[in-house]
Amino acid sequence: MILEHEPNKQDITEAHERIKKHIHRTPILSSSLINSIADCEIYFKCENFQKVGAFKFRGASNAVLSLSSNELQRGVATHSSGNHAAALALAAKMKKVPAYIVMPRTAPEIKKIAVEGYGAKIIFCEPTLQAREEALAKVVEETGATFIHPYNNCSVIAGQATCAKEILEEITDLDFIIPPVGGGGLSSGTCLSAKYFSNKTKVIGAEPEGADDAFRSLRDKTIYPSVNPKTICDGLLTSLGDKTYSILNQRLEAILTSSDESIILAMRLIWERMKIIVEPSSAVTLAVVMENKAKFAGKKIALILSGGNVDLAKLPWN
Amino acid sequence: MILEHEPNKQDITEAHERIKKHIHRTPILSSSLINSIADCEIYFKCENFQKVGAFKFRGASNAVLSLSSNELQRGVATHSSGNHAAALALAAKMKKVPAYIVMPRTAPEIKKIAVEGYGAKIIFCEPTLQAREEALAKVVEETGATFIHPYNNCSVIAGQATCAKEILEEITDLDFIIPPVGGGGLSSGTCLSAKYFSNKTKVIGAEPEGADDAFRSLRDKTIYPSVNPKTICDGLLTSLGDKTYSILNQRLEAILTSSDESIILAMRLIWERMKIIVEPSSAVTLAVVMENKAKFAGKKIALILSGGNVDLAKLPWN
Repeated sequence: MILEHEPNKQDITEAHERIKKHIHRTPILSSSLINSIADCEIYFKCENFQKVGAFKFRGASNAVLSLSSNELQRGVATHSSGNHAAALALAAKMKKVPAYIVMPRTAPEIKKIAVEGYGAKIIFCEPTLQAREEALAKVVEETGATFIHPYNNCSVIAGQATCAKEILEEITDLDFIIPPVGGGGLSSGTCLSAKYFSNKTKVIGAEPEGADDAFRSLRDKTIYPSVNPKTICDGLLTSLGDKTYSILNQRLEAILTSSDESIILAMRLIWERMKIIVEPSSAVTLAVVMENKAKFAGKKIALILSGGNVDLAKLPWN
Repeated sequence: MILEHEPNKQDITEAHERIKKHIHRTPILSSSLINSIADCEIYFKCENFQKVGAFKFRGASNAVLSLSSNELQRGVATHSSGNHAAALALAAKMKKVPAYIVMPRTAPEIKKIAVEGYGAKIIFCEPTLQAREEALAKVVEETGATFIHPYNNCSVIAGQATCAKEILEEITDLDFIIPPVGGGGLSSGTCLSAKYFSNKTKVIGAEPEGADDAFRSLRDKTIYPSVNPKTICDGLLTSLGDKTYSILNQRLEAILTSSDESIILAMRLIWERMKIIVEPSSAVTLAVVMENKAKFAGKKIALILSGGNVDLAKLPWN
């Protein structure tokens, strides 16, 4: 059964138990050079090493593993052309049940291949919100599959919360945890884990300037849709949902934004100094720290490196 | 005191104790996808995460920490434009003693900056072996610094041996350890650790076809100089020395070579699937496994990813 209420401490703990043997417990790395540049103590949680290369597998696998055997048999469905599609496809494959992924015809070939590689059935649609929702409604009606929203789903949020739970189990006395903010699944889960598994750790969201709908939504207390976002962070283009908005509105300390220029610099710094591959959507967390040095000086901070799926033939500094 | 004999079990154990708190104990990663492609069980020892981005810091720090306080005061010297130069510079900085690095005038700007960044004094020379040796002899005479050869030095070899020692402490029953072979410091150290810390693990060297001097040297029982090597593996251009040759000749199971084309494919596979940055000289280890599938099918193998220092603006697939 998909959770119908805001995940509480027990829900998150149970989610972690449920997915533990299926996910990677990703390492937490640090770099003394980056610490000295940023003038604070940074712990990088490496979800770029997670299965499918992104934290999304936590939420998708928790949702799939929460279904009853009746529900499971009919499979799962979603619309996404990104990491959630691959994550849901792999989670379904793990339980040997069908996954139906609605994708715009225009999605990059590499993403289609990845999702097909995990054995999912792709349903192509025109690249509009309406076409996407219609195609999804149709496949759900025809198959009886359970729709797993990429982020506005309490079981998905509980799954994403396990990332910060792992951080808080390993690193004590953190002043801040900083996740990137897209649709809010990871950031709202992080807020809940900070509430339940820490004494004083605050959560600050990081968002690209060119897709700052969550920043504006929380400032003005209304959910703005993400209209024509312009940023290199292809994982952070979506709008908040009512469930993620509600949690962030209550619990998020602040959202800080960063220019794409700073995000690219931060991404390159992580690649060069830490020798790990992160996508731009991950690097926005370091970018906001570098752009707000006074705020973070001397603090102990965990940054969530949300994923590592980049096209190596198209790097932003070439 | 620099070791004057082939490192024995006690020398390697002492080297490890000596450097332990200065080096990173690098992680050992695996990828189920790469295992299924290669049809064997591979453990990647991530020296790309080592200080200065390469295993070289093990040998350099062991050599520096082995010096008497009299020797230390006069500093250390070497000729190198690569990872050993940076490693020796950092090891000297750690002990607050001078490092003199002889480098060809033509060395890439990025390497000069890195070595200067660690506080070393660079002595430029013409890009010939003779000019390099003369410049080194001069600086040693003038300063009394101890020359630390990049690989043909028993304390350096003992330091590099600690990498395989760590592997063997964590992964049991390995059939093979595969290091890349350049001057032979890492590969000869790996042979010694396999002898002293395993029952049955064999060491196979990996070398690029375009710089196969070690392969030919061991086949013909004579040290061939590396003349006009042509390979993307910029860390594997050097010839064996008498000390490394002697150990490899006695203890190395075999050397396998690989084309640059396979090395680039293997490098990209590691980047894409493991989300880590390795240099071509590291990827040659996976390349020889992929090119010799029948030999390695079903085997348990550790590959040493020797370093991660690449120019991100010049990737081989762009």
